[in-house]
Amino acid sequence: MKMMRDRIDQELASFLDSKVNGSIDPAVRNIVQLIRTFTLSGGKRLRPIFTVMGYSLFSRPDSRIYRAALSTEISQTYFLIQDDIMDQSLVRRGRPTFHIDVHNILYSGQEGLQRQSESIAIIASDLADSYCHQVLLTSGFSSDLLVKADQELTSIFETTGHGQLIDVNSSVVDDFHIRDLIRVHLWKTARYTIEGPLIIGAILSGTGRKIHKLSHFGYSLGLAFQLHDDYLGLFGDEKTLGKSVKSDINEGKKTLLILKAIENSDESDARFLREILKSGHVSDPEFERVKRIVEQSGSLEYSLSFSGKLAENAKKYIREQEGDQETKRFLEWLADFIIKRDR
Amino acid sequence: MKMMRDRIDQELASFLDSKVNGSIDPAVRNIVQLIRTFTLSGGKRLRPIFTVMGYSLFSRPDSRIYRAALSTEISQTYFLIQDDIMDQSLVRRGRPTFHIDVHNILYSGQEGLQRQSESIAIIASDLADSYCHQVLLTSGFSSDLLVKADQELTSIFETTGHGQLIDVNSSVVDDFHIRDLIRVHLWKTARYTIEGPLIIGAILSGTGRKIHKLSHFGYSLGLAFQLHDDYLGLFGDEKTLGKSVKSDINEGKKTLLILKAIENSDESDARFLREILKSGHVSDPEFERVKRIVEQSGSLEYSLSFSGKLAENAKKYIREQEGDQETKRFLEWLADFIIKRDR
Repeated sequence: MKMMRDRIDQELASFLDSKVNGSIDPAVRNIVQLIRTFTLSGGKRLRPIFTVMGYSLFSRPDSRIYRAALSTEISQTYFLIQDDIMDQSLVRRGRPTFHIDVHNILYSGQEGLQRQSESIAIIASDLADSYCHQVLLTSGFSSDLLVKADQELTSIFETTGHGQLIDVNSSVVDDFHIRDLIRVHLWKTARYTIEGPLIIGAILSGTGRKIHKLSHFGYSLGLAFQLHDDYLGLFGDEKTLGKSVKSDINEGKKTLLILKAIENSDESDARFLREILKSGHVSDPEFERVKRIVEQSGSLEYSLSFSGKLAENAKKYIREQEGDQETKRFLEWLADFIIKRDR
Repeated sequence: MKMMRDRIDQELASFLDSKVNGSIDPAVRNIVQLIRTFTLSGGKRLRPIFTVMGYSLFSRPDSRIYRAALSTEISQTYFLIQDDIMDQSLVRRGRPTFHIDVHNILYSGQEGLQRQSESIAIIASDLADSYCHQVLLTSGFSSDLLVKADQELTSIFETTGHGQLIDVNSSVVDDFHIRDLIRVHLWKTARYTIEGPLIIGAILSGTGRKIHKLSHFGYSLGLAFQLHDDYLGLFGDEKTLGKSVKSDINEGKKTLLILKAIENSDESDARFLREILKSGHVSDPEFERVKRIVEQSGSLEYSLSFSGKLAENAKKYIREQEGDQETKRFLEWLADFIIKRDR
């Protein structure tokens, strides 16, 4: 893992350096420099690792796949810059978010230039998006494979957009159901973070084998990953997590834990949960009541058993998938790890 | 022209219909429907026409090039949605801008959901961007040509982003020079509107001929096009243009006409021009003074002679370019038309 991550970081730095050095205009150069800093500081490189894994199921990793895999990492820059504008977030990965960085650095925090900084950030996200296609198209694979992989990349971006649409819209609609939530998780998390990156790697290997079990693995594990994330967001340990366990509730996140608890509770508990999500602030006793309702309604058990089953299914799928044994064992291990992690 | 445009409109409608009909989620479907409406209502289809022209220099237009050419039209949806958010514009092509449409239709104009509507619009621009790559990659050309064309498309988007960065930044920096302005015009207008679309067409024809004269034609004509646009924006006829001739000044646009007039004028006239750009409102007598300074400083003559020379150069370049005679004659005619049009 560590070796793979280091190699990805190296390739990433080298590509972004070439972009900085290739900028002839000083205003452009400043922004490309900020894109470089943002992309390199932080991030677990999960997506490019999955791309290399999808490839190594069928072919020995080479320099081409490490180059192509950058597309699934730079896409994080593309989407996170936009996410942070949409949520008006100030901090990301322990640093100022991109539009805040622009405001501080380019405009020295000058009053009234917040909107202007967001505009610059939107353009930066467009640049990152164009980089995603560039690293892929110049990775050195045959044109036939590149066309297929780029179609997949574009389709992943489209699916992610669909998930994001439903997600952003969910905060203002009342009839947001479990079905909608699962859709958001499958489209925005599972496909974008696990299934898509794996499939891009598999496509680039040029394998003739069927890969639909790999796809099932990605969707199952992606959903399990999200459910476990929501679990930690409510029942995790603040110190280990490094963030407040109240933040999900304060942000009004409609997680499966909450939606299922509302469905299973009597009217007074259900109304309490609905109102607490809208309040933007949960007190200590209220927070304890939220956890109690989630437990007593059976929602906690439902969610844990659901993510456990998903991880088991994922492991079954990857065992049934043809391909390199060692890679398969690693992916199986990852499935266990993902639903057992405590942060 | 008319026939080409009709064919492009047909292809565009058919692609966007397939996107609407393929949306299984109702929230997604609503937005894709808005993308369809926005893209189909208005626009001169200049970019896809240039793509078909670039192709027909070397090959007889077929259904594949009409499909691929949509990429240079849908990119307008991608960028215009973002432009209108950045400028906080309310009207585009005689209709509400995209984010305003979202606010009115999706949220019935509800107070406090303006930001939310802009977020949805940003996601819609991402979807349009993914459509650009999709129409190209599924156009049916050989993989080798598709990879080259998609690299060109991505590079055009990157260059456009660079131009847009300098442009957005220009409104808040004082040392914005003619050199910077020409850069914006070359990157944001010439490459994006004329040179890029032509080159994509030429690439897809699979020609082995050199195409750098075609590229020169595109850059020269693109710059001439922009200068003539700025000329009309100050000296044009309001009725013919269908917009106020004062709007460029009121928006504080730093055009070549204004920058050159500032450069050539005495301190009092120069200060007047600088201040009027910042004021956001120009009265009738002030507007007459602006025009008088632009004329008397020699800036008007400079700009007209510059765009005239550029158009002449463009015509020379296209005559020197190898390729189909009829297409070349059409492009030459277009060069004349572009600097003689009165709207």
